[in-house]
Amino acid sequence: MRVGVLGARGKVGAEVCRAVEAAEDLELVAQVDTGDDSDDLGALTERGVQAVVDFTHPDVVMDNLRHCVEHGIHAVVGTTGFDDARLDTLRGWLDASPATGVLVAPNFSVGAILMMRFAAEAAPYFESVEVVELHHPDKADAPSGTATRTARLIAAARAEAGSGPVPDATSTSLDGARGADVDGIRVHGLRVRGLVAHQEVILGGPGETLTIRHDSLDRVSFTPGVLLGLRQVAAHPGLTVGLESYLGLS
Amino acid sequence: MRVGVLGARGKVGAEVCRAVEAAEDLELVAQVDTGDDSDDLGALTERGVQAVVDFTHPDVVMDNLRHCVEHGIHAVVGTTGFDDARLDTLRGWLDASPATGVLVAPNFSVGAILMMRFAAEAAPYFESVEVVELHHPDKADAPSGTATRTARLIAAARAEAGSGPVPDATSTSLDGARGADVDGIRVHGLRVRGLVAHQEVILGGPGETLTIRHDSLDRVSFTPGVLLGLRQVAAHPGLTVGLESYLGLS
Amino acid sequence: MRVGVLGARGKVGAEVCRAVEAAEDLELVAQVDTGDDSDDLGALTERGVQAVVDFTHPDVVMDNLRHCVEHGIHAVVGTTGFDDARLDTLRGWLDASPATGVLVAPNFSVGAILMMRFAAEAAPYFESVEVVELHHPDKADAPSGTATRTARLIAAARAEAGSGPVPDATSTSLDGARGADVDGIRVHGLRVRGLVAHQEVILGGPGETLTIRHDSLDRVSFTPGVLLGLRQVAAHPGLTVGLESYLGLS
Amino acid sequence: MRVGVLGARGKVGAEVCRAVEAAEDLELVAQVDTGDDSDDLGALTERGVQAVVDFTHPDVVMDNLRHCVEHGIHAVVGTTGFDDARLDTLRGWLDASPATGVLVAPNFSVGAILMMRFAAEAAPYFESVEVVELHHPDKADAPSGTATRTARLIAAARAEAGSGPVPDATSTSLDGARGADVDGIRVHGLRVRGLVAHQEVILGGPGETLTIRHDSLDRVSFTPGVLLGLRQVAAHPGLTVGLESYLGLS
Repeated sequence: MRVGVLGARGKVGAEVCRAVEAAEDLELVAQVDTGDDSDDLGALTERGVQAVVDFTHPDVVMDNLRHCVEHGIHAVVGTTGFDDARLDTLRGWLDASPATGVLVAPNFSVGAILMMRFAAEAAPYFESVEVVELHHPDKADAPSGTATRTARLIAAARAEAGSGPVPDATSTSLDGARGADVDGIRVHGLRVRGLVAHQEVILGGPGETLTIRHDSLDRVSFTPGVLLGLRQVAAHPGLTVGLESYLGLS
Repeated sequence: MRVGVLGARGKVGAEVCRAVEAAEDLELVAQVDTGDDSDDLGALTERGVQAVVDFTHPDVVMDNLRHCVEHGIHAVVGTTGFDDARLDTLRGWLDASPATGVLVAPNFSVGAILMMRFAAEAAPYFESVEVVELHHPDKADAPSGTATRTARLIAAARAEAGSGPVPDATSTSLDGARGADVDGIRVHGLRVRGLVAHQEVILGGPGETLTIRHDSLDRVSFTPGVLLGLRQVAAHPGLTVGLESYLGLS
Repeated sequence: MRVGVLGARGKVGAEVCRAVEAAEDLELVAQVDTGDDSDDLGALTERGVQAVVDFTHPDVVMDNLRHCVEHGIHAVVGTTGFDDARLDTLRGWLDASPATGVLVAPNFSVGAILMMRFAAEAAPYFESVEVVELHHPDKADAPSGTATRTARLIAAARAEAGSGPVPDATSTSLDGARGADVDGIRVHGLRVRGLVAHQEVILGGPGETLTIRHDSLDRVSFTPGVLLGLRQVAAHPGLTVGLESYLGLS
Repeated sequence: MRVGVLGARGKVGAEVCRAVEAAEDLELVAQVDTGDDSDDLGALTERGVQAVVDFTHPDVVMDNLRHCVEHGIHAVVGTTGFDDARLDTLRGWLDASPATGVLVAPNFSVGAILMMRFAAEAAPYFESVEVVELHHPDKADAPSGTATRTARLIAAARAEAGSGPVPDATSTSLDGARGADVDGIRVHGLRVRGLVAHQEVILGGPGETLTIRHDSLDRVSFTPGVLLGLRQVAAHPGLTVGLESYLGLS
């Protein structure tokens, strides 16, 4: 498969380029970015690109995707900033090019996706569940976006299964000791030098606990998910949101 | 639901009795065991038992189950010693009583079942996977039966998905340093005073790891699984092996 | 050594009795408590008791200790409620019986004591440190007393070494996400069914973390500390507060 | 303090240069290595270097150190290959320059040093102890050198304290399931993609465990130890082996 990378000069894009070049079944034929030595969008068709990876910027990603869809080029997109309006626009373009596939995913880490999935799947079977996320101390927000999303998925799964609230007899506490409350699920954020990005979901019932932990130690952790996306995007025409369905998780 | 417990004087059976009595939707009406103050099998029909739990002994469990199936009493069975021949015999009895359900499960811990399930489901998405089990030092066998079973499930899932062997560049090692090899998956057994029964599956790909850990801290950890079995056995006529299908895991 | 147990009918006292009976170098010769079949304090001298263990009640412990010190009986005390006034009173009694040793300790778990000790010792060598405690959900207070004490010891060790504040760039957060602040150290409390009593201290510097974790899985965890106290109390005349000095930790 | 770095073009040396430059109290004035744009040893005295860091090669380190000691320049040495003969030679040179300090250390990670230290200190207080090391799968040896050294330190501490053998009732096991035996202590080595270098020591007694874990996530983890060495080497004239004594650990 002939691949183009949009945003090829960025930190993430550069890792994607390395990973595509290292994969035997993929060929990197275009590297588009701003700057003198970069290709432009025209190069995609000139060089017969079949699928692109886009890690660019919310300001340019829609133009990139319109161009790709119009030319029947599949796209795997990690750029942020997609709201319902943008997704609807994308669906409209894809209606006119029904054989083309676009995958928009907020997260390409297979480990993070499985952690969230397993946590939500297990949550109705246990009385208790809490989320702990651990990051380097330069991070600006707490809890992390992934932890908040995990807690919401857990809360939704429990609501659907008719689970009651998690038990908690705390009657006296210091402010903050029991963490933040996200839809009834407690979330704790640690900030420790030396850490990268880590998350743990602890579920418990009488006499046992189940812990699901994801450790992200290096930026390259998203590359297997991007390659998986490239290999499967042609088989998923239309718009797909989230890598989950490519993982065989309904 | 009117419940009888077979093996009610055993350690496990006694916990089951306590759990049934504590459940609002279940009524404990018969406690069968050997000994003066125990009920006998006849009590099951006299008292209108709808479902039994059997934690007895391989020597008596088949007689117990024949009696139950003949009388249309559902059964949730944790007694060991079931081979294919016994399961076939059970199926034969159940053919003659098609509305009756029997669940035979080697493990009623929801946490242990989900750990094995998630490990096998995730294994094809990562290059590496190893299993560590940790128990008290009075345990006679290493690795534990659960760890061996987990490794086999992982190996089978990888084989089915066409995953290659796990990477390992070890060229010089002390005997045993890399653990035991179970179907190509490394399994490590720790024996430490103070521990009860714990297991961790560590999966890893470029830049990230996913860890699934089960801690069993108290014998009561199987009771939620037994109660789940009692509540669903009537809805699953015929023979079911393993609690997995009651958990909505195909 | 001939041992008496005061509070022998309590949950903790009963475990102490079992542990003393199982120890080859200790002989349990008196079990004092309220109730018909218990010994009284007079039995201690009648039976030649050399050292007692006291797990009774703040209301009676001072009378017990006055009696023991007057008769030259060493004492290992786990009963709570000791303030400076009580410790001064004890010292006064011991001045009059200079060969007698009394150990008053709030915690006999060797694991918990070492965890706190190591955490405080390591804290000045790392930029970051946070405390996580995990307990069953029936616990009334958060954070736990041990976690609060650990954070204070860490803060004191850092202040003495001239360490600066821990780094934290958090600018937007949900209430509670970053835990409670105890003397500048963040403390997080989890409440999960199935857990008993657990604590983790995570320290971090550039590129590395050091984690010290204590898991208390069973009430018997204090018995090795009590036996250690009994074996060493005669060699430590006068008042000793805390098991630390018996552990060779200054 | 005016600092020179020997081996400044190597991976480790380059990190040391960055760390020295970032430290307010240290000034990087010479970068010695082979190659056109490097300084030579003569630059050390010309530029008034007070202390060097040496991460070079066993073939050149002794020449480097003779030069430094002769000129009264302190040295912090991470180069490998020091045996008793080399250390004796070094002591001889230092006798002739009694105000000069040389620190030779096999490990500059404060976290790793404290892990080993705490493990050995705690080991006599627990019945059981095992070591688990976890590394990326490209590592050639198992167990790791650090794990072997940790096990030996633990075994020595237990022997000195008169501790008995660790309990283990294993009677049937798969080859390797119980790990490698290093002086009677079990050591387990995991190899998982995504990991860097990690080690865990698990100690246990009745009802409790104490776990000491070190995670090394990035090569920079040794830099705080090197800076600590630079800041203290002048206050430790003569030869010091191991960073431990600089850490106030006897």
